[in-house]
Parts: sequence; structure tokens; C-alpha cells
Amino acid sequence: MIGLDTPLLVRAFLIGQRASIDHSRRCPVTDSSPLPDDLLVNAGDEVRIRQDLVLVALGKRPADLILRVGRLLDVHTRTWAEDQEIAIRGRRIAWTGPAGTFPGTALAREERRSLAAVPGFGEVHKHIESSHLTPEHEAALVLPRGNTWTCEASHEFSNVDGPHNLEFWLTARRNGSPMKIFPLPGSAVPPTAYEWGGGHYGYDEQAGFLKESLMVAGLDEVMDWPAVWNPENPSHKRLWGMIQATFEQRGVVEGHGAGLRDLNSINAFAAAGLASDHEGWTPEEVWDKLRHGIFIEIRPHSMPEIIGGLLQRGLSDWSQVAFATDDRSASDTLRMGATDYNVRLAIQSGLSPETAIQCVTINPARHMRLTPWVGSIAPGRFADVVLLDDVENLSIAEVWADGRPVSRGTDYIGPLPQIRWLDWASKTVNISRTIEAEDFAVQAEPGRATMQAALLRPFHWHDDFITMELPVEDGEVQRDTDRNVTKFAIVDRFSGEGKISRMFWLGCGPRTPDTAVGCTVAHDKHNLWVVGSSDEAMALVANRVAEIGGGWVLVSGGRVLAEVRYEIGGLMTQRPAEDLDIEMQNLYAVAGKIDWLYEPTFSPRWYPGFPERLQFATLTCAPWRWVLVAPCEAAPQGFVNVVTGQTHPVVW
Amino acid sequence: MIGLDTPLLVRAFLIGQRASIDHSRRCPVTDSSPLPDDLLVNAGDEVRIRQDLVLVALGKRPADLILRVGRLLDVHTRTWAEDQEIAIRGRRIAWTGPAGTFPGTALAREERRSLAAVPGFGEVHKHIESSHLTPEHEAALVLPRGNTWTCEASHEFSNVDGPHNLEFWLTARRNGSPMKIFPLPGSAVPPTAYEWGGGHYGYDEQAGFLKESLMVAGLDEVMDWPAVWNPENPSHKRLWGMIQATFEQRGVVEGHGAGLRDLNSINAFAAAGLASDHEGWTPEEVWDKLRHGIFIEIRPHSMPEIIGGLLQRGLSDWSQVAFATDDRSASDTLRMGATDYNVRLAIQSGLSPETAIQCVTINPARHMRLTPWVGSIAPGRFADVVLLDDVENLSIAEVWADGRPVSRGTDYIGPLPQIRWLDWASKTVNISRTIEAEDFAVQAEPGRATMQAALLRPFHWHDDFITMELPVEDGEVQRDTDRNVTKFAIVDRFSGEGKISRMFWLGCGPRTPDTAVGCTVAHDKHNLWVVGSSDEAMALVANRVAEIGGGWVLVSGGRVLAEVRYEIGGLMTQRPAEDLDIEMQNLYAVAGKIDWLYEPTFSPRWYPGFPERLQFATLTCAPWRWVLVAPCEAAPQGFVNVVTGQTHPVVW
Repeated sequence: MIGLDTPLLVRAFLIGQRASIDHSRRCPVTDSSPLPDDLLVNAGDEVRIRQDLVLVALGKRPADLILRVGRLLDVHTRTWAEDQEIAIRGRRIAWTGPAGTFPGTALAREERRSLAAVPGFGEVHKHIESSHLTPEHEAALVLPRGNTWTCEASHEFSNVDGPHNLEFWLTARRNGSPMKIFPLPGSAVPPTAYEWGGGHYGYDEQAGFLKESLMVAGLDEVMDWPAVWNPENPSHKRLWGMIQATFEQRGVVEGHGAGLRDLNSINAFAAAGLASDHEGWTPEEVWDKLRHGIFIEIRPHSMPEIIGGLLQRGLSDWSQVAFATDDRSASDTLRMGATDYNVRLAIQSGLSPETAIQCVTINPARHMRLTPWVGSIAPGRFADVVLLDDVENLSIAEVWADGRPVSRGTDYIGPLPQIRWLDWASKTVNISRTIEAEDFAVQAEPGRATMQAALLRPFHWHDDFITMELPVEDGEVQRDTDRNVTKFAIVDRFSGEGKISRMFWLGCGPRTPDTAVGCTVAHDKHNLWVVGSSDEAMALVANRVAEIGGGWVLVSGGRVLAEVRYEIGGLMTQRPAEDLDIEMQNLYAVAGKIDWLYEPTFSPRWYPGFPERLQFATLTCAPWRWVLVAPCEAAPQGFVNVVTGQTHPVVW
Repeated sequence: MIGLDTPLLVRAFLIGQRASIDHSRRCPVTDSSPLPDDLLVNAGDEVRIRQDLVLVALGKRPADLILRVGRLLDVHTRTWAEDQEIAIRGRRIAWTGPAGTFPGTALAREERRSLAAVPGFGEVHKHIESSHLTPEHEAALVLPRGNTWTCEASHEFSNVDGPHNLEFWLTARRNGSPMKIFPLPGSAVPPTAYEWGGGHYGYDEQAGFLKESLMVAGLDEVMDWPAVWNPENPSHKRLWGMIQATFEQRGVVEGHGAGLRDLNSINAFAAAGLASDHEGWTPEEVWDKLRHGIFIEIRPHSMPEIIGGLLQRGLSDWSQVAFATDDRSASDTLRMGATDYNVRLAIQSGLSPETAIQCVTINPARHMRLTPWVGSIAPGRFADVVLLDDVENLSIAEVWADGRPVSRGTDYIGPLPQIRWLDWASKTVNISRTIEAEDFAVQAEPGRATMQAALLRPFHWHDDFITMELPVEDGEVQRDTDRNVTKFAIVDRFSGEGKISRMFWLGCGPRTPDTAVGCTVAHDKHNLWVVGSSDEAMALVANRVAEIGGGWVLVSGGRVLAEVRYEIGGLMTQRPAEDLDIEMQNLYAVAGKIDWLYEPTFSPRWYPGFPERLQFATLTCAPWRWVLVAPCEAAPQGFVNVVTGQTHPVVW
């Protein structure tokens, strides 16, 4: 109580002092139960964690650790603050501010006064499956490279085992891996109405995922554009059901605008409610997309052109831009880097380091509505910090995640949970018979010496397929190596029956006789593709792949020359990146001795030599037209135009 | 089909032509049922609306109208495009692009080639109740001033009738009003644990609101800071329950950081997960808040200082900033403007017009996760467009909403639904007895000639109350006009019993004898406050307010001198702004003849003369301490310290 005799002027003077709230009262700990483990975000835990953080920030409970840094990048304002401290409690940041001003005590202190702290990097759109590592090993690979959180574009595993998809992606984190994986269930499950097995996502599944976990940020890349725009497309209803479920629960609907470059398609894409695109190739299309409200996720392969083009057009507000790795193998990450590579490339392309860092921190976090958890070094967020010894060159000295150092240089020193994956993850190549050479035969009509054949090439972005006249021998239509023609097959690995579709392809596969290669990474349905110069070799590949539970197998002269085990989902392996890389390098080396057919195709990313990118040549999304899928009711030979639904015999 | 004889080089050349998807195939309308009315956003309708928009964008269905403008501001890139067309279908934008390039037909065309189009303005935090107009009349007032969407900070009506809150805010839109109101249920229902009646929101209620409608963007300003940080506070659990429900459904948790200016409080505020603040007064605190991840909503009263201060500190990334009107009466809006005023003030304060416009369009839309619907002139969004004839001065020529012109100059020409509000909205002052003068008496202890009294002033931002010795006459403690002391009371308007708490206040109310004024706008619980120089006058005010169903009543010499009817919720009136303004101007004129007590207080916004701001002097949120509330169990006399829960007799 103050008496009225206190003059008003004096009391008015108190304003300055009283402007801040006095928290000096003792605060009892009313809930003495241990805090949640804070691995997977959920609303109930969130409340208890934040109630505790508030008291730490006010100095009423001790911080676990204070990290002092030379300077700290605030990505909300794009400004640096010098000599800062970060007070950490559990896995989160409780407080940041000038060194020496934290109001409470701390159980430990660390100093990195020569280093600059920037937020942990986020991947706005990445298929971890393309690293071919299980999530805990992905974490060990990318964390030292700054990548502490990833919006997992879960097309691949979801197509292998849709019902277990969420469980798969959350398991590593649940077991203590410091990387935050935010799965976005794949819209392309199945990729088109002509693919089947593994999973089928519609309204109910997506509604269930979003309800099950706050880690689910939305719906992953809606890539079946014909199914979006055309009410007659058989996937129309399924896809819009997923979009509806995502809107319903305030999630983000990610787009995939490959080939959608004209202004009308871009308008239609935005009108559909697809919030982002990561498929831009030219500055023109990216500029048009940005200006139609589409959040842009730039991939490295087109980054210099796009960033240069946007700067040239006067873009000064980069808040609608992020960087996306999309697909990168563990071997490439070891060689190039992870998200750090993308940031460095952006800086080299003309962006300031600070803006480039925003494109992998606050921008993607805001777009994905994940700002309470990631994207900045600010209270309430996970204590994920990248410590740089050279900002201009983005040289990473250490990375912290969950409030602890997890790397020194490129060495991972954080927790690596030992996960016993169950059969649903580790036994996914379901072929319960022996595949025979005859399974790959293409029968000719009786009495014909030649037959017309429909051919595809990898990345044959054309409305029509190719036709050629091919020789017939022993009642079967034959390859024609001299004209670059080989045989390509899809072996179903879901039904147990090993259903096979086969046709002739151009400009890929081994020229070396009696040789074949195949892999269970076959975007996006991930059956087994096999390409070979003899049916016997193809059968051997198929059987060996089934034996090892998925991966690569290269066969020649009746022997397995090399193989790479992807025993998890047929897509990934539960081994460190370095171990996988050794196996991959062996495969490349052995494959280097094989003579490979080649011719250019529409994709600039189709190279001579070992046809590793055949993994992507089975993609059925835009702008693909005629494709080979596993036999299905609508296309018993598996040869179908996914835009029109038209089928055609592979020979006639 | 193409034959292989087509040379590869020729085919490669086709890429350019084929880069865009060919949508030339006929598209049948498979669903011939009429499109949804598209008033209130919901996921199911969203799908049908967007499926249709896609086909309009591709030129496969006609647009309703094409609006051609001189130039168009894209707020995603902060760049202008010249000579643009906006194709509208229903209430939405289907397509934008250079004039003359729309691929389809349109049923009508409009040209505004001399005007510049910018997106409809959004209010990120506004209490429409403070306009004292029902939502349909608010729309008619603010739409011509550019404001096409509002995140309604629904503290006021929710405290009057919590269960009907969402219905109340959605009714005008449901009946065709072109303004989009996105209600955020009020966290302060009740504002503190010492207030009651009208509504009680906790986890269940908030979960229900978020589930009921996608129009609900999150949780409105969490303003009971003691309840947030202090586990012992009786509102702690209720408030965190609402926060939990909001996290659970991916909503936005809005903050209210009044007086939280020191770095520790700001850290704690951010750690709590409160995403925004609109209570910044100084550039220092706003800078600190921005840099701790708090989205900043700047109000006009402190805008020049704040914008100036942020520019001075080198802020070049304004993506985390929006402007907020918060509270503004219809009379003030008629005089000053609505959101347009805020933008003009920002430009005058040093921001470029384009950045200032971002602060009322894309920035608040992104923060509130409403970008699919509002915040930009882009496909899929509502066709809300502000047409400027002078960008630098933000001179508004016309406003379009839902794809139609709704204003010319400041005249509203859009639809104004005639709503028959039910009793739950129009009969909310529930006092079922006649209030007597004795109800306001403060009894003295027998035999005392004076008594000590606890006093408050409006906006008494101090930890302690004031004490004075006051005279006793006829067994009752008396006012002391010479020392600026009058009587202030809260009359409960929820229980029917007209429970009253009363005490002595300083520096407000009438000096003129036998005079009183009162109002049912009494933030945030909205009981009836009355201040008067006689108990008889106070009783007359109370009874007349009850008779007219809420509003202002000014009484002197036993007569009602002026009144203003707020018959809806006791907060608003169902009349045009101009009609209300006439009544308000009459009240001001009559009140101008009354002699009013005055003395400065901590709030710089407390002025001499008619004490209109007593509407806010009953606020119980930070940084208030001791307040007068209606009698409650914990504080039978209604005098309570809302931070500590301490009570005290009003005289002793």
C-alpha cells in the first residue's frame, strides 16, 4: 500500500521501473513428476515443457546449460547479436540474451566465443529414402552438416508399407535420435490409379495421420496433376480426399509442379490450393509461381540459374523461398554435403549468407507451420544450433541438437539408437516363387518374323511412345542391341506372386551379353525394375534381390558381380553412410566394367554409364505419359498412358 | 506415336514446346450440382470450389468476370505488375496475368486501368465489439476503407455469452456479408479466476471451436500473464488447457505482452509458445520481442515511434510484422479510417507503401495460417481487392470483396444482411430486480467518524492500492470530491441478482452533484460499471442501462440526460455507424456540460473530460494488480489483487 501523500509526479516516475513485471515471488514446483521426454511433439507434453521453460526463463528454475557464442543470427530480423548466451533446459531453448544477463543459475556452461551461432537447418522437402539410410543413420550423416530437422516427403516408404509409414518415420526420434523428422504422408500412394500394393491413402488415412501426431505437418507433394485437374481421372477423388483431410486439420498441402510452366497451369496449380513447388527449373517459371502465391523450394540442380534470375528481377523479399534437397544419396551427401551444400551454393549464386540461412530456417519453418519448434534460435524452440567458424563460407565447426553437441567437424558424436526393425520394415520384398527366364519373354504372334514393338526411353517426356520393328526368334520378340534396344521389366514385390510386366526400352541397360541390373528403388511405387541383355540374367537379378530383401543386384555371366543391400523397405539400409558408400563404390567399380547402352533423352540428368537414375525412370507423375507399371486390372501388360488411361500392347 | 526415324535432335527440340502441360482435352462437368455458397470456409466445400477454380484457370469453364487493372501488387515478392487481369469465379480468384492472355471466356468484364490493385486488408487483431457495431454493420463501415478480413479477437462477446460466441461471429458472413471474420476464441473467458458469468472457456471449449470451423484460426491473446507463468494461479490450468487444445489442432496461440518489456519476461513469453504481441509501446521492447521470435502486431498509438525505431535499428525484413487496430470505435473509424489509417500512418512513419501493405496482407495472413484464403491477389484466394488511385497516399477509389465492388469512395454498396438476432444476443443484461441507491452504500463501522479506504485510479499500474481517510456520515463512508474521490461500482449483469461491488476511486467520474454515468462495456468481463457523485444517480444509471439492454447512460439531477444503446451483447448496436455516431456525439455534447474529476495516471491514454476510457479501466489483465470485480467467492467485496489473489476490505 502506498499513501496518497506520495506525490503523483513521483508515482508517475515509477513507470520506468514498473514497466516490467516483477516475478520475484517464489515459485513452487507444483508438479514434481519428471518432464516429458520431449522427443515427439504432442500438445499435452508441450504444455508441461513450456510451463517449465517459462520458469527457467524467469530464473526461477535452473537451466541445464548455458552456451555462450561469439554472435548469434536472429533469422526473424536477419540481424546478428554479439556475445550472446543461450540457456538450455532439456532439449529446448529457455532464454537467449547478452552474455552475463541470464537471471537464473545453470548446471553447466560451455563457451564458443569464437563461433557464430545460426539455427539448425531444415529440409522443407526431402525423401530420406533417397539417402538409402534408415532415419537414425540419416541423422548421423546430416546432423554434422547442419541439418537438424527434415520435412520428410514420405512417398517412398509409404508406397511400400502405407499403414506403418508414420511409425517408421517416428521410430528413430522416439528412440532418442536428435534429428526431428516431420513426416508429410505421400499424396502419391499409389502414385497413379494404375499402381497398387503397399499402401492406399485417401481421406481416412490422411485424417488419421494428422490426428495421430503433431509431427505430421501436412500432405506431401501432390504430384499427380492429371488427377488434380481432371474430374474423370481415376485418382481424382482419392487425391482430393487427402487434400480435404489436410485442410480440415490446418495442415500444409505441398505441391509438385513439374513441367507446369505456362501461366495458365501455374494459376490452376495455385487455385487448387497447392501451397508450394520444388520442381522449378527456370527463373521464368519460378518467378511466375512466386507471384501467384506459390512458396518456392529451390533444388540445387537449378539453384544458380534460379537465384540469379530472381535477383535479376529485383527480388528483395525472400520470405517465400526455401531450399530443398529432395533426393540425394548418402554417397553424394558424403561428397557434397547436406543442407549446408545447398546454402553454400546459394551464397555462391549471389544471396547473402544471412538470407540463404533464412531459406533453410525460418522460411521453411513458417511455411510448414513449425515455428514453435524449429527454424530459429529462440525460446521454446528445440536447442538446435549450427556453430560456424566462417559465415561467408558456411564452415561448420560443430552442430548442437536437443541442447547437446552432436558433431565435431563432420564426425557425428550424438546418440545413435539401436533399433530392431520389425518384419514390416525389414521383410518387404514379397516374392514367394522363383522367377524364371521365361517370365521375361515377350511372345510373338505365331508365324511372324518381326513384330512392331512399343518402346520407351528413360525420361521419355513425350505424349507418344516410340515404335520399332523387332526381330522374332523361337516365338519370342528379341532385343536389338545394335539399335540400342534392350528389355526392361517391372516385377511386383507386393502380392507374393511376382507378377511381371516387360517391354522393350531404348538407350539404357547393359550392352554386355548375359548381363542385367535391377533395384527395388523404383520411384514411386518401388516394385523391382530389371533391365538386361538376357532373360536369364534378369531372372537371376530378381531372385537375388528377393533373397537380400531389396537393393541393387548386378549380374553377368550367370554370377552376381555386385550387390547393395537395402534391407529396410527395399529402399534403405540400417548402416552408417560410410559402410553403404563402400558397397556403392564397389557397385560403381564393377559396373564400370560393363558396357552400357546410352542415348540422350529429354532429361538433362540422364548420363552415360551405369544407369543409376533408372531408379527414377519408373516415375509415373507429371510430365510422364506412357509408362510401364506392374500388371494391373486396367493395364494387364502394365503399359499405360497415365494421363489418359489408354493402354497398348507392347508388341503387335 | 512417333517413329524412331524422328531424329533425337529434333525430338530434343520439342522440350521447349512440351514444357507446359497440354490441357486441351475436353473436360466434362461430372458434378452438375451448384457450387457451395463459399461464405464460411470448410474443407469439404473447399475441395469443390477449388476443383472448379482449376478448370476456370485452364480456360475449360468460363470466369464470371474479368477485372482489368492498371497495375497489381504481388505481396509475395513485393513487386508490381503492369496491366493485369484478375479472373473471378464465384467469390474467388481463379487466374491472374497480363491483360489479354486469359485462356478462357468470361461472362463479364470490368476495366479499372487507371487504378492500382492491392489485396484486401486484414486485421490481425481487432475487437469488433469496440466498434460497437454488429458484424454486418462493421463490414459496411470498414470495407470501404479496405478492410476485407479480420481476425476477431473475441474477448468481449465471449465473456457475455461464451457458448454462442462462434455462432455470433459467423452469422453475418453466413448471411452474405462480404467481410471474412476469422474468430479467435478469447483466452480471457473469464479474464481472471475472480470473474464469472457469461462464459467459461477451457480445453474442451477451445477444442470444440477449432473443430467446429476452419474460420477459427487459433486462440486469442493470452493476456493473463500471472496465470501463464505461475502454477499456483487459479487460472493456470484453464489457460494452458486452451493452449493445449490450440496446439493440438495446429492453431495459432496469440499473446498479449502488456508491460512485459524486460528481456527475461520476453524470453518467458516466447518460451510459453505465445506467438505474437500487439502490446508493444517502445521500439526497444518491440525489437527485443521480434528478436525472440514473437510476431509483432503494431498498433497506431505507438506506430511512429516503433517503426522509426525499427528502421533505425536496420530492420529490412518486415515479414514478422503486421498492423493491428485492436480497439477503435465506429466514431473514430468514421473520422480516422480503419486499416487504411494504419497503413497511411506506417507510410508516414517511414515504411514504403509496399512494405506497409504487406503488413496488412500477406504478413498477417501467413502468421494466422490463412494464406489459402486471404492476404494476396492470387488464385484460390477470395477476390478481395483494394483499388487505389494514389499509392503513396493510399487513396482508395473502390474496394472489391467476394469478386464484386462493395464501395465507392467511403460509401458501402455491398450486401447488408438483415439479421434477426435472437435473445441470446439481444437480451444479455440480466438484472431482474430494481437497483436501489442503498446498493451503492459503503457501510462504516459503528461509531467511526472516519474510516480508512482503499482507492484505485483508472489504470493504476502499481503493485499497491492507495489509501485515504474518508469521512463517515449517517453510518456510511462518503465520497470526498474536494480530494478527487468518488465512488465506482461494478453491477453484475449475468446472475439476475444484480450483485454489486463498490469502492472509492480517485480522479474520475463526475464532480457535478447527483450525476452518474455507466456502461456495459467494461473490459473484459463486461459487467456494468457505474461511477457517480450520488448513490441515487448511480442506481438510476443501472436501472436504465438494464432497461435498454446495455450501453451508455448518463444521469444528472434525477434525469437521463443521454444514452447510447448497445442492445447486442450490451456491447454493440445493430445500426449503421453513422447512426451510432450521432448518438455518441450527443452523449459527448451532453457530457461536455458535466464537470469531470481528473488526475493523471500511469496510462498516457487517460484524458480529462468525459471518462470514456473507463470502459477499459476494469481490465484485469497485465499489468493490472488490484482491481474491482463483481462480488465473487474469493473476493466477496470484489476488491482483489489478480496477481496474488490477495483481497482487502474496501474500507476498514
